[in-house]
Amino acid sequence: MQGRGANRRTGGRSARVRAAVHQAVTELLSEEGVEGVTVAEVAARSGVHPTSLYRRWGTVEALVLDVAVSRVSAQSPIPDTGSLRNDLFSYASQAAADVGRPDGLAFLRAVLTAADSANSTAADNASHATTASGAATDSADPRLPFLAARGAQLQTMLDRAAERGEPPLDYTDVLDGILAPIYLRLLFGIGGVDDAYLTRLVDHLLTVPVC
Amino acid sequence: MQGRGANRRTGGRSARVRAAVHQAVTELLSEEGVEGVTVAEVAARSGVHPTSLYRRWGTVEALVLDVAVSRVSAQSPIPDTGSLRNDLFSYASQAAADVGRPDGLAFLRAVLTAADSANSTAADNASHATTASGAATDSADPRLPFLAARGAQLQTMLDRAAERGEPPLDYTDVLDGILAPIYLRLLFGIGGVDDAYLTRLVDHLLTVPVC
Repeated sequence: MQGRGANRRTGGRSARVRAAVHQAVTELLSEEGVEGVTVAEVAARSGVHPTSLYRRWGTVEALVLDVAVSRVSAQSPIPDTGSLRNDLFSYASQAAADVGRPDGLAFLRAVLTAADSANSTAADNASHATTASGAATDSADPRLPFLAARGAQLQTMLDRAAERGEPPLDYTDVLDGILAPIYLRLLFGIGGVDDAYLTRLVDHLLTVPVC
Repeated sequence: MQGRGANRRTGGRSARVRAAVHQAVTELLSEEGVEGVTVAEVAARSGVHPTSLYRRWGTVEALVLDVAVSRVSAQSPIPDTGSLRNDLFSYASQAAADVGRPDGLAFLRAVLTAADSANSTAADNASHATTASGAATDSADPRLPFLAARGAQLQTMLDRAAERGEPPLDYTDVLDGILAPIYLRLLFGIGGVDDAYLTRLVDHLLTVPVC
């Protein structure tokens, strides 16, 4: 009985810690950009001890990625409209909206920077490694779980379409033909990302058979 | 006469200062990433006084972009093979090679981060603005000259093809269809950027008529 109570408290506490930490990361990112997200700042703002942050997430990069995954999954569930074209358009609209939010670009830049930081930390600066255990930084790209989880969700959407007899696509085709141009235009501030543009990207992807 | 001599000396000194500063930025970027490129570090490494750096470049972001433009222009001249398809393949290969160099990703990330830093500095943190004169950061994206110069070069290549009777393209089509997927794959560490892949991107861009 004491065990059950302790477990329940631990579960509740764990969820509260996660929520507080995610909130702190989101605020720091949107206020100060990637450079503002340090273990010290996250600890101060969330009230969670730095040791707990290291134990649970290992690195600042892993923490930012965890927040980014939760955010995308909550805000942009993978579409299931019954039509590949509509699914792709919906996916494209969500991606543009995600990055178009006030802190959207900061999140995208944080994800794009995460592997670089981890690699340069491991390669050039091992004595300053920010991990509690060194294992995680050895050479694995910390974004692989993020990409794998989201890629698998996207592939499920594409496989549903193929089963309906629509053109089979690999999720990397969607990265190349839809996600990449949207991200590049928003990251470079080129603009022109409206519904007509997204429709054109989807049509272009669906017109040419994929080898 | 004294004027001519002074001008000549200024020109030579100016070129030497630029070379030393560019060298310092390149080294700092590849060694420490974007965060390592500060006015203080560039000044220390190049032997150029911080005041001179502010006077000439205004911001660290503008300095990094100046180095990035020089680098791309020197290493990757716009192709002119006589065939649009070959021009595009050559352009794609150069872009992949640029980012594939040891400090290539660091440069790309620096360019992608530059506008964000400038904007958040201007918006949230005006008192910490890093410009000598405030004018430059008001709202202009510091990367616009970089993009405009490179975009104009690319458009010249595409216009030559259109004059030969090949399909007319806008340079933004090349950003969407070729540069964006290459950058995304390299930034995310997805891989698969080989000649067969680049050929597929070029073929896909040329297959569908552009609206």
